[in-house]
Amino acid sequence: MHTQEIRIRVRYAETDAMGIVHHAAYLVWMETGRVEWCRGLGIDYRAMEQEDHLMMLVVEARCRYLSAARFDDEAIVRTWAEEAGSRMLRFRYEIRDAMSGRMLVEAETKHICVGRDMKPVRFPEKYRLAFRAS
Amino acid sequence: MHTQEIRIRVRYAETDAMGIVHHAAYLVWMETGRVEWCRGLGIDYRAMEQEDHLMMLVVEARCRYLSAARFDDEAIVRTWAEEAGSRMLRFRYEIRDAMSGRMLVEAETKHICVGRDMKPVRFPEKYRLAFRAS
Amino acid sequence: MHTQEIRIRVRYAETDAMGIVHHAAYLVWMETGRVEWCRGLGIDYRAMEQEDHLMMLVVEARCRYLSAARFDDEAIVRTWAEEAGSRMLRFRYEIRDAMSGRMLVEAETKHICVGRDMKPVRFPEKYRLAFRAS
Amino acid sequence: MHTQEIRIRVRYAETDAMGIVHHAAYLVWMETGRVEWCRGLGIDYRAMEQEDHLMMLVVEARCRYLSAARFDDEAIVRTWAEEAGSRMLRFRYEIRDAMSGRMLVEAETKHICVGRDMKPVRFPEKYRLAFRAS
Repeated sequence: MHTQEIRIRVRYAETDAMGIVHHAAYLVWMETGRVEWCRGLGIDYRAMEQEDHLMMLVVEARCRYLSAARFDDEAIVRTWAEEAGSRMLRFRYEIRDAMSGRMLVEAETKHICVGRDMKPVRFPEKYRLAFRAS
Repeated sequence: MHTQEIRIRVRYAETDAMGIVHHAAYLVWMETGRVEWCRGLGIDYRAMEQEDHLMMLVVEARCRYLSAARFDDEAIVRTWAEEAGSRMLRFRYEIRDAMSGRMLVEAETKHICVGRDMKPVRFPEKYRLAFRAS
Repeated sequence: MHTQEIRIRVRYAETDAMGIVHHAAYLVWMETGRVEWCRGLGIDYRAMEQEDHLMMLVVEARCRYLSAARFDDEAIVRTWAEEAGSRMLRFRYEIRDAMSGRMLVEAETKHICVGRDMKPVRFPEKYRLAFRAS
Repeated sequence: MHTQEIRIRVRYAETDAMGIVHHAAYLVWMETGRVEWCRGLGIDYRAMEQEDHLMMLVVEARCRYLSAARFDDEAIVRTWAEEAGSRMLRFRYEIRDAMSGRMLVEAETKHICVGRDMKPVRFPEKYRLAFRAS
């Protein structure tokens, strides 16, 4: 199972008036986690969009917020694919505080492969092979 | 059951390179839905934070993305509380395209009441009564 | 001179750990101000992009932050065009607190008309006439 | 003159329907640049806020957008202080595409030192010395 870890330093703009990272910001980090997970498998997500005109549309997201990150904290986003079908991918994420190892967020997203018209299509074989090998 | 509807006009900054609203933006709309749901019950969420030093921390979020909104579309966010405990609230949301009525997102968030130290506390009675009457 | 006023209620996600609206959020409000300024002139900015394949690219922005807005405040964004050329528009903005009238931000943005290839082009005559009449 | 360079990989969420980085996102990158500039001088911006209860409030921002970054591009944000007074700092920024060296944005922000009540105060001596040495 291919897992990818990335480090994110909390930006000031990602905090809110509670003094913690706004809960929507983690979805953005997870998106970055997916892009790097792809890169780790030799898949350039940008090329998938621009050359193959395919997108991994988010159809579901589920987050459990366990502990709050704060400005300037470093977080580690661990990303892996839990399920890889011919037309869908399901990712899991664990976001931890880099210093303490404390779990911040556990999450899951489900994606379908769509063309420019937003209609579902099968992932081309090169991607399916890479995803399955993950 | 108190339900609150708000209208949101999609901002350009909320779109992404797919030409659709970024999936994290809906969480921000839902937050606005909660604030207006509170206001509809006579609860000023800002006062809850600033005078009672209580916050409704998000501990879970779950979204199903059914259809994509685009720049300048108007969406209707319908918000209601599905469960109101002495220390927690569970909200449900339906986000529809205002013009067509097409469902865009179905979602749910769970919140706990915390003090400034992020420790869980019971909602004061005035809030519990209002939530239950909802 | 056509000026357009819109009302914005501060979203929680727009605040930061200082407890005030993050300075980048005002640019998003100003963008909304421009879209509504266009609509007030009978110009549908979305159609300009989707049918005429033209965009009003931001080439300069200048903001003076005079006072801070906070969560749930209502702001009024006043937008007008200070200069309208055949290929450019310069907008001015005044953002005030709706309750007190206190000035929050004074700003200016400059835009050029570009096609899909990001190359500058002249605004089509229908837009130039509307802008000049503003 | 102390200058600090940071690398930023464009996030999908930072793009908009034009397919380019939204112009407000660069302000967030510049903020990150300032934090790292401080760190490079031995100043922990978080501690300045949390221990000394001081903040560097943005009072002016000026950006010239010269070329557009796109998803997954790497940008280099170069940050330096152009002016350091006892109560204010003026920063300059150059944001370039890491691959081509192409200038994306030239910008400037002005900040004043404020306490928790948002009233201007002098930077404590330890900061003034560090800033001047920059």
